Amino acid sequence: MTRTIDLETATELIEASQAKAEEIGVPSVVTVANSDGNLIAQHRMDGAWLASVNISKNKAYTAAALQMPTHELAKPSEPGEPLYGLQTTDDGRIVIFGGGFPLRRDGEIVGTIGSSGGQVDEDMEVARAGIDAFEELSG
Amino acid sequence: MTRTIDLETATELIEASQAKAEEIGVPSVVTVANSDGNLIAQHRMDGAWLASVNISKNKAYTAAALQMPTHELAKPSEPGEPLYGLQTTDDGRIVIFGGGFPLRRDGEIVGTIGSSGGQVDEDMEVARAGIDAFEELSG
Amino acid sequence: MTRTIDLETATELIEASQAKAEEIGVPSVVTVANSDGNLIAQHRMDGAWLASVNISKNKAYTAAALQMPTHELAKPSEPGEPLYGLQTTDDGRIVIFGGGFPLRRDGEIVGTIGSSGGQVDEDMEVARAGIDAFEELSG
Amino acid sequence: MTRTIDLETATELIEASQAKAEEIGVPSVVTVANSDGNLIAQHRMDGAWLASVNISKNKAYTAAALQMPTHELAKPSEPGEPLYGLQTTDDGRIVIFGGGFPLRRDGEIVGTIGSSGGQVDEDMEVARAGIDAFEELSG
Repeated sequence: MTRTIDLETATELIEASQAKAEEIGVPSVVTVANSDGNLIAQHRMDGAWLASVNISKNKAYTAAALQMPTHELAKPSEPGEPLYGLQTTDDGRIVIFGGGFPLRRDGEIVGTIGSSGGQVDEDMEVARAGIDAFEELSG
Repeated sequence: MTRTIDLETATELIEASQAKAEEIGVPSVVTVANSDGNLIAQHRMDGAWLASVNISKNKAYTAAALQMPTHELAKPSEPGEPLYGLQTTDDGRIVIFGGGFPLRRDGEIVGTIGSSGGQVDEDMEVARAGIDAFEELSG
Repeated sequence: MTRTIDLETATELIEASQAKAEEIGVPSVVTVANSDGNLIAQHRMDGAWLASVNISKNKAYTAAALQMPTHELAKPSEPGEPLYGLQTTDDGRIVIFGGGFPLRRDGEIVGTIGSSGGQVDEDMEVARAGIDAFEELSG
Repeated sequence: MTRTIDLETATELIEASQAKAEEIGVPSVVTVANSDGNLIAQHRMDGAWLASVNISKNKAYTAAALQMPTHELAKPSEPGEPLYGLQTTDDGRIVIFGGGFPLRRDGEIVGTIGSSGGQVDEDMEVARAGIDAFEELSG
């Protein structure tokens, strides 16, 4: 079953991520998707890279499509590792570096969030601010 | 020179369109793009069609790429008319039915809005609510 | 065998087309390709539609890929006609309205030209100015 | 706000790059794009590789989409580095080796240039000849 969060919640998470992005000075694109990886909402902050529009959306897609955070995919996708080549599958939508995360309620994935705009650790921090907001809203 | 509007303005237009969509009972996807057709913000209202995510984005793209409202493209793209076949050009991003409009400031296109989710006249009404909000903000 | 014209000739044809486009007030994108439909040169005039970048290139491609002017493709691609559906084949690169033409030397196609930016008859006029220049250069 | 340079300037930069490419004997494809990565002009020199048509265009795209020279992307995209996998994102348009550069005026990116046709250091040299011409024109 496709699970989803509503648009109101999605925009609240995005705003929480945007607040963090502003705080650390990293103009970002933040996307929230449903558990099928389809977009609910996406915001491109002023000055964020154009490439981040696509990368943010695909981080959210990847977190849904493989049901895990995107930063867990880099290591197994390296040459010599079992999933080498993963990053070119699924019509080029798989992103293997950090910034995409599932959003869970009672252990079930109900959506995902993807952020792009800075260094990978910054993207992860921005996305996690959205996750924190989600957990507060759900708590 | 390509122009853009800021994210804050873009989300205000989308919210104005969403309010109209709720009023007429048509869950919609609304996208605001810059004058080069690249996404600034996109919201999918709860219950809006999945196809509308792509269609809304491409209505906004088309209004930028051809510098005109999308509903003006249907008639000339019919069989027997001069632009028959337009709808399959530009990597499938051209949408030839209504719901995509340029946003102008001092006569210049500074962005676009695209709405999808209902009948074409409903999509146009929803998009126009965003344009009205833009004109109030700019006025 | 792939035939081609050289870059110097290609840019001369494009400049001749641009001069016509300026004369008639239609900012255009003009592409010259080789007989395999691959780009030799492309210019986007200031103010020309973004969509015309792709459409101009694919008019040139189509004129090479089907070895005929693109305006001859509209009629047979209409519903009820033998080639109905042609416009969605070949990875979406086929353009069935006017503005793409082969360039011939001694009866052989040695390249193509494609113009986009205005009404179809204007695009054809702009492209033909390039063909005229080609015939003068070859004559 | 997205910025652009005009076609006349774009072709002058391309000609400067072509002169350098001839001097060092490396037939190249050179593309100039606007700050949203959309093509303004592209020339394929006689004898330049077919693949360079796409690579040159995407180097110009990448320099706009990530607002930096493409040669800065190779190292962080290696296996084990933070952005490993970057090269397969954004619909395959990201190029992570050298030859794509932003063009800046008063610190702002107003366009980009991408060159492809030889070794990476040759591509960079060819593109830089275009940048030098841009700085002379702007100075």
